Amino acid sequence: MDVNFFTTVERMEEVSDRLLETAKKVGIDTWEERKKNQTPSCYFGEGGVCCKICSMGPCRITPKAPKGICGATADTIAGRNYLRMVAAGAATHSDHGREICRVLYNSDPNGSYKITDVAKLEKIAKEWGVETEGRDIYDVAHEVAYKGLMEYGKPFGKLNFLERANEERKKVWEEQDVEPGAVDKEVVKAMHMTHMGNTADAEALVHQGLRTGMSDGWGGSMMGTEFSDVLFGTPMPRDTEAFFGVLEKEMVNIIVHGHDPAMSEMIVQAAEDRDLQEYARSVGAKGINVCGLCGTANEVAMRHGVKMVGNFLQQEKALLTGVIEMMVVDVQCIFPALGPLSECFHTHFITTSPIARIPGSRYVQFNTAEAREQGRTLVREAIDNFKNRDESKIYVPEDKQKANVGYSCEAIRKCLDGVTNSHLDERDTYKPLIDCIKAGVIRGAVAMVGCNNPKVRPDYAHIEIMKKLLKNDIIIVVSGCSAQAAAKYGLMDKRAKDFCGAGLKRVCELVGIPPVLHMGSCVDISRMMLLATGIAKDWGIDVPQVPVVGCAPEWMSEKAVSIANYVVTTGIDTYLGVSPQVSGSAQMMELITEGTRKMVGGGFIINTNHEELVDAMIDGIEKKRAALGI
Amino acid sequence: MDVNFFTTVERMEEVSDRLLETAKKVGIDTWEERKKNQTPSCYFGEGGVCCKICSMGPCRITPKAPKGICGATADTIAGRNYLRMVAAGAATHSDHGREICRVLYNSDPNGSYKITDVAKLEKIAKEWGVETEGRDIYDVAHEVAYKGLMEYGKPFGKLNFLERANEERKKVWEEQDVEPGAVDKEVVKAMHMTHMGNTADAEALVHQGLRTGMSDGWGGSMMGTEFSDVLFGTPMPRDTEAFFGVLEKEMVNIIVHGHDPAMSEMIVQAAEDRDLQEYARSVGAKGINVCGLCGTANEVAMRHGVKMVGNFLQQEKALLTGVIEMMVVDVQCIFPALGPLSECFHTHFITTSPIARIPGSRYVQFNTAEAREQGRTLVREAIDNFKNRDESKIYVPEDKQKANVGYSCEAIRKCLDGVTNSHLDERDTYKPLIDCIKAGVIRGAVAMVGCNNPKVRPDYAHIEIMKKLLKNDIIIVVSGCSAQAAAKYGLMDKRAKDFCGAGLKRVCELVGIPPVLHMGSCVDISRMMLLATGIAKDWGIDVPQVPVVGCAPEWMSEKAVSIANYVVTTGIDTYLGVSPQVSGSAQMMELITEGTRKMVGGGFIINTNHEELVDAMIDGIEKKRAALGI
Repeated sequence: MDVNFFTTVERMEEVSDRLLETAKKVGIDTWEERKKNQTPSCYFGEGGVCCKICSMGPCRITPKAPKGICGATADTIAGRNYLRMVAAGAATHSDHGREICRVLYNSDPNGSYKITDVAKLEKIAKEWGVETEGRDIYDVAHEVAYKGLMEYGKPFGKLNFLERANEERKKVWEEQDVEPGAVDKEVVKAMHMTHMGNTADAEALVHQGLRTGMSDGWGGSMMGTEFSDVLFGTPMPRDTEAFFGVLEKEMVNIIVHGHDPAMSEMIVQAAEDRDLQEYARSVGAKGINVCGLCGTANEVAMRHGVKMVGNFLQQEKALLTGVIEMMVVDVQCIFPALGPLSECFHTHFITTSPIARIPGSRYVQFNTAEAREQGRTLVREAIDNFKNRDESKIYVPEDKQKANVGYSCEAIRKCLDGVTNSHLDERDTYKPLIDCIKAGVIRGAVAMVGCNNPKVRPDYAHIEIMKKLLKNDIIIVVSGCSAQAAAKYGLMDKRAKDFCGAGLKRVCELVGIPPVLHMGSCVDISRMMLLATGIAKDWGIDVPQVPVVGCAPEWMSEKAVSIANYVVTTGIDTYLGVSPQVSGSAQMMELITEGTRKMVGGGFIINTNHEELVDAMIDGIEKKRAALGI
Repeated sequence: MDVNFFTTVERMEEVSDRLLETAKKVGIDTWEERKKNQTPSCYFGEGGVCCKICSMGPCRITPKAPKGICGATADTIAGRNYLRMVAAGAATHSDHGREICRVLYNSDPNGSYKITDVAKLEKIAKEWGVETEGRDIYDVAHEVAYKGLMEYGKPFGKLNFLERANEERKKVWEEQDVEPGAVDKEVVKAMHMTHMGNTADAEALVHQGLRTGMSDGWGGSMMGTEFSDVLFGTPMPRDTEAFFGVLEKEMVNIIVHGHDPAMSEMIVQAAEDRDLQEYARSVGAKGINVCGLCGTANEVAMRHGVKMVGNFLQQEKALLTGVIEMMVVDVQCIFPALGPLSECFHTHFITTSPIARIPGSRYVQFNTAEAREQGRTLVREAIDNFKNRDESKIYVPEDKQKANVGYSCEAIRKCLDGVTNSHLDERDTYKPLIDCIKAGVIRGAVAMVGCNNPKVRPDYAHIEIMKKLLKNDIIIVVSGCSAQAAAKYGLMDKRAKDFCGAGLKRVCELVGIPPVLHMGSCVDISRMMLLATGIAKDWGIDVPQVPVVGCAPEWMSEKAVSIANYVVTTGIDTYLGVSPQVSGSAQMMELITEGTRKMVGGGFIINTNHEELVDAMIDGIEKKRAALGI
């Protein structure tokens, strides 16, 4: 196996270290230094047994103080804190989805936002009982979008997309009472339950965590994904590149960072406008180079092949290259540190959403009516800023990797069609994949997701786990910062088949795919839920039986906790490399690892040692295989 | 002045101490002991500079670590924590309001819940554009209730009740962009803004705090109050009693505790059923004695004269009397401590809401269809439990006070009508009160609200502040646990006029009211907003000009933080005796004390010394008078 093509984590760290020298030079702190200053972190917070929910406290559970002032135990406190994390995560993802609904509601054939995937819109309209026959597609879009917005607030009924699940799942969800009503209502209920003097029973808190998570995964996030596809196109495989080397010294570099594609799409479009490209050349640049960071990178990479600078913990490093004319951010995972950092360079730091107002940025509130022109104005300003670089602060690493991205469910099925006999076989199904799994050529699949977290050597767990899974003929689907870790390393290069065992390698060659399939950003984990559901349906079994598990080895955000909740409720075991902050409560630890599995068929497996974590995953997959008799 | 009628705080404490002996005897902890164990509390939590919003941390701001790992400063962290408190409080109050909407939606002339105040329903219907002419009142109710439920989730538009404000306020709210949309949406937005990597700007966080608070006070809480009145009757003055002496050794004692009147109304009704009263006598009891605790006490006292055992920090003491056959709770402010405590006695501890599941309780989920019968079943069970008392554990203090309660806005205007000339004067206005204020007979008014908090000697600040205000001819309206402090002391006894200065005393005598007017539970602070608005309208000035301020000297819950936000946004300065947990950020302290006043005309004045706090309040009122030239 020739691994010379790949960028090792060690090399990534060398590059980081070089950029940290610039940080030192310009006199700015980075997460490495701040992490050091924050170490050791608070024991009570880590264990989830610090309660700040009312101002009688804060209270902390210790052997000498086993209860808070109200009588809350460690179980109650950890349970409430945990549910609040789920609620915040679900609110966050779902509010992103709502923004996409709003954009769809305002879509206009003559406006900034148009309908791209008519077929997908019509499919959703049909699911939701919206008439399409003989109607203008924009009328359909507006009615679907309104229904989407009502999913957040309808007073009665459960979420529309729950109907997409397989029958066995739906039955479990109904029996376990985890079918969410309106998204916002579930978040508010979670906040109410965790308010002082309400639910103290950890099991009830965990149960509402499942419902609230579901309102994200099968509600807000799924709408975010689906309507983004309708507006901007359903991803199909395309090539891109990843890591710092995608930045171009000779070009105007604009980084889009955040999660909501509505803004970044406008920047990408503007950068393709001929007049602006000419304008860039007129100021001495070779062109305009829009690159992505974090969730936004995934969105625009999958739809336009926009290059990916990197993931969460690289956001400061990107600016430290000194060649970023503008960083435009929308929402989520944006370090407040970018404010003072950007001031050390010529970089314009632009915030665009009322959700993410950050000191040290310039605020340009995006609105659907003027978005196209706003995008152009920003690109023009970035070009104007090209001349202001300080050569003495520039260092652009050359390392980058090729990545083949854009594996939506639709794309995966289309790839699978390629290995079927168009005359004999059913098309547009997961059956060829299921056959491979049944035959043992592929042992199973893992959904690798989640963030970076300084508690873990950045990207290392992602990469090491992926490599071992591949070696064991386990195919990987990825999203979010995990996807970018894979891309930076080179695991989305089709040549990465060489990391695989013989079975998976052969499948990759036959189907023409990399062994790590890029499914999108964090909201796109809803795609993974539909993938698992589709496999279960085509196989005729329930989701927990399918040899598929989820893994978030370096998760960090509340969104990840919400995700983990809907993943387990969908029936998929989730392997975590960072412990949720409930370890101070034995009951909570039991509930999230074993308790939920009894309710809905999935639970957490927590292990901060990534080698043990991947072994547990392989073991989990093999046990599912054994249970199926394959 | 004869104060022998009154129960001093010292006497309240003697009684508490005696009950604590029982706690010691049965071997159970109480808040006093737990508070001791939790002291000193965490410095970082107190200052609001501990961040648990993502799992990179927890992070804490110190001189050596001035930023969290993401770069969040003390201002960002304290601001986010603060907005989350507002969000949780608004969610909590509003979800209570939603439950009342649901009950109204299910109201049925033949069911458990009927329409009581038809006039109020018709008034709201008219405000909201619901046709009433020639329609069955239940059809009207159901349509109004549906519209109410949509206030939580409507995708577009601002809240209906904002129209009730005076024109000057509405203008300020529009200019400052603090008019909330759907209630749930504002809470979710607040959660999203505070998620890792979103808003880091303290001012934007405080601004969303105002909006979110408004969605509570002029949304969820106002609907909770108004629809409770529609269902159970708008409070009118009536007599009741307060403090432990309301418990009856010879009777079956049932305590209703929590906040949502839907459940407690059913218990109160059932206890009046003749067959159950006979059944109680058949087991040797003299009858059934339903008493209230906390918010629920206010609800049923104002509408039925149900007696009030006490407020928040007395909930354990109530059980320690040993004569409580049953404690039935709904939502909010219920100590988890009641679980293990009730197990030390014969007391049945019944939880009734999915929002408040508590270990050690029996769960009977109330539902509108069967509520009347569920209430009867519980009362019957309480009667059955009468025989199980353990005489050796009984001690019932005899102390109690008379209280005249039930001063809704409608009731206050009716009282004021009593001093007008029915032939000459306009009726149903606040003008007589305004005339008194203009003349200086009454200097102004204070809305005393909020909880108890062990950080303050319980009830002491409430009482001492009230007494000084009365002496200075400042009339008081009260709600929540502040109301109960006043009731226990005797300040709602009409004889309490003797605490007043000459002017206020004469007004009390003429109008026939106590000097402390009971306006209800915490959600009923919405009544106070309407009162202040009504005065401003009748006066022809804006709310911040009216010599009215708010005061929460012993607040403790997140609800209180939400309340404080809508009170200041309504233009009323709010005096706090417990500091919000933002003191670790100078910017946040400035924003909540001075910043909001610049935006909306109201801000916080924080002073943990109650003597200084009341002096500041008197000074504030006198300054408002001076500005008006009165």
